[in-house]
Amino acid sequence: MCFNMHKRQIALLGSTGSIGTQALDVIRQHPEELEVYALTANHQVELLIRQAREFMPEMVVIANETKYQQLKKGLQDLPIKVWAGTDALAQIVEAEPVDMVLTAMVGYAGLKPTIHAIKARKAIALANKETLVVAGELITRLAAEHRTPILPVDSEHSAIFQCLVGEKENPIDKIILTASGGPFRNFSLEQLQHVTKNEALKHPNWNMGAKVTIDSASLMNKGFEMMEAKWLFGVAPEQIQIVIHPQSIIHSMVQFRDMSIKAQLGLPDMRLPIQYALAYPQRLKSDFPALDFNQYSTLTFEEPDTSRFRNLEFAFEAMRQGGNRPCVLNAANEVVVAAFLQDKIGFLKMSDVIEKAMQTVEPIASPSYEDLVETDKKTRDILSDYII
Amino acid sequence: MCFNMHKRQIALLGSTGSIGTQALDVIRQHPEELEVYALTANHQVELLIRQAREFMPEMVVIANETKYQQLKKGLQDLPIKVWAGTDALAQIVEAEPVDMVLTAMVGYAGLKPTIHAIKARKAIALANKETLVVAGELITRLAAEHRTPILPVDSEHSAIFQCLVGEKENPIDKIILTASGGPFRNFSLEQLQHVTKNEALKHPNWNMGAKVTIDSASLMNKGFEMMEAKWLFGVAPEQIQIVIHPQSIIHSMVQFRDMSIKAQLGLPDMRLPIQYALAYPQRLKSDFPALDFNQYSTLTFEEPDTSRFRNLEFAFEAMRQGGNRPCVLNAANEVVVAAFLQDKIGFLKMSDVIEKAMQTVEPIASPSYEDLVETDKKTRDILSDYII
Repeated sequence: MCFNMHKRQIALLGSTGSIGTQALDVIRQHPEELEVYALTANHQVELLIRQAREFMPEMVVIANETKYQQLKKGLQDLPIKVWAGTDALAQIVEAEPVDMVLTAMVGYAGLKPTIHAIKARKAIALANKETLVVAGELITRLAAEHRTPILPVDSEHSAIFQCLVGEKENPIDKIILTASGGPFRNFSLEQLQHVTKNEALKHPNWNMGAKVTIDSASLMNKGFEMMEAKWLFGVAPEQIQIVIHPQSIIHSMVQFRDMSIKAQLGLPDMRLPIQYALAYPQRLKSDFPALDFNQYSTLTFEEPDTSRFRNLEFAFEAMRQGGNRPCVLNAANEVVVAAFLQDKIGFLKMSDVIEKAMQTVEPIASPSYEDLVETDKKTRDILSDYII
Repeated sequence: MCFNMHKRQIALLGSTGSIGTQALDVIRQHPEELEVYALTANHQVELLIRQAREFMPEMVVIANETKYQQLKKGLQDLPIKVWAGTDALAQIVEAEPVDMVLTAMVGYAGLKPTIHAIKARKAIALANKETLVVAGELITRLAAEHRTPILPVDSEHSAIFQCLVGEKENPIDKIILTASGGPFRNFSLEQLQHVTKNEALKHPNWNMGAKVTIDSASLMNKGFEMMEAKWLFGVAPEQIQIVIHPQSIIHSMVQFRDMSIKAQLGLPDMRLPIQYALAYPQRLKSDFPALDFNQYSTLTFEEPDTSRFRNLEFAFEAMRQGGNRPCVLNAANEVVVAAFLQDKIGFLKMSDVIEKAMQTVEPIASPSYEDLVETDKKTRDILSDYII
């Protein structure tokens, strides 16, 4: 992996979301090392305008084309190129000056621009986990072919990546993926039946977007992270162990074949893994608050309970079976989380609907990109009938 | 750091001690990678003979010359060179086929052969911490001059070393040295007054030799480890923090300047850091039992109490002042531990005597090797009067 020594030029896809705004926080603090080349957002045009006026990128893209005029107008006095539409995302990541693409958009939409960026050999700071969940085989094969580095932004995978630095020749025995257990860790099935959207949106440790916060509460997020880990680190499903660690201080661990375990720790602050990916292999000086063991004097660990959190089982099965199964899982999950956030279905019902989708959509063993697009569409179609 | 790809030839200094016998356990399990070139012991001639008959080294040395004939006789039917006396140690480490010298003898005696090995550019697997405590400046300067790698064997320093692999360009912000706190962690001063040798020799987690077990109970061992860390990793005294972690699962940690912390974990088993040093940078497959988080479901952390464990303060002061202060501390400690093991003085009295030595022996700011020898001698002389 080789990076230029100049100021790193970053295309930030999804700049108005939780990861995006925190990434801009990091870039703001390191003007000597990091520079914004492009900013893109889905629809939050007001915030995108403010960000563009502050960071002065070469270009901005708004995916939602109905917002184009508003964006254009908001930046008309500045020499910033303004584009609209999802096709523009694919173009932006290929621009010659771009060194790194941070994929921080939510959901399945991250797949296509990530493929373009990999083919253009832009280092990927991967925050869009659905990309690997849905198309892990495709993405990792492409990255290997084009020798494009993929740097994980998820705190767990960043932790694993950090533990593996300098250990290239040493096989992984096991990945220990830690999970906070979410806000409902100790809830009974009866209690889970009645949890509300607002309860689910209160994550005990991490400050994240709505979709991933619900996924954390349902442990689907951890299921996705298993798959992400499988692809990023080339391990078998059986080599991934989930350990519930409610304090979220140990962000994950790697056990090597000599039974030595390396872990990465810190306060739960997404800016740390974001910064690590953006500046890799350099660790930039930061003013992030340090972990104080007087404050965190007890760290605990438990086994996950898959009878209450069935998503973990679905995810493990989807990972084991491969093919288009993870794509079905992801599409079904996007549908049910949206429905839950609109108060259309209850918390436990989410898993029931996902199970239904897994049973209904036909398996494809080695899906092409088009097959995945089709699987995604089919799953959503089936479920939209089923939910309403 | 560059190592030959052939079977690594190891000179094992101190093969009959706790580290030595565990190192032979490791070598026994990896005959493809590791080979014993030389074995040396202080006086345990029977065990040395058995070890030599099993591992068939090129040569063996018994430091205690009165045991020479017995050793010679015990190996007379084998083509093994037999030497005696401490001067032979210095020669053995310089032998051309030796790739690595494991310095596993106890106390100050490790200094001279370590210097010879460094000058002969033999990689050092350093288990003799007194070498760095007494002569850290000299040793690290020589190692830099001769480009000789020093690989720590102490579990804490091995942990730090493992955390630093691949992080060469990233400055250390802080080293977090974990300490079990020893068997008397929760004892009051009143209780400490009356602890016996046998109580002190029962370490809660680690299986080690008598000297280091007493040093662990008195926390002097942790004081020495601070100094070792200072020299091995080039940090300032203020960059070393001691955290009491009674379970001894996290073996130590490094905090980088981005506030990310890396830790190395495992069951307390000295064979792991020994094997890591002997085979570095390779991690050999092992059958060491793996850490099970169901069994260690709670890890705790506390601040050390220097009012009950004064040795930590002495060690910090000696480290801060430098010069011959650590040498005085070490010599005084060797004397008091021997006296304690002979039931000549009580547990708390050890610190009083050490304090006396620190106040009495004159400081030398930049001691030569000869100055250190003189300081060591003077400290022992003064204290032998003082104790009897």
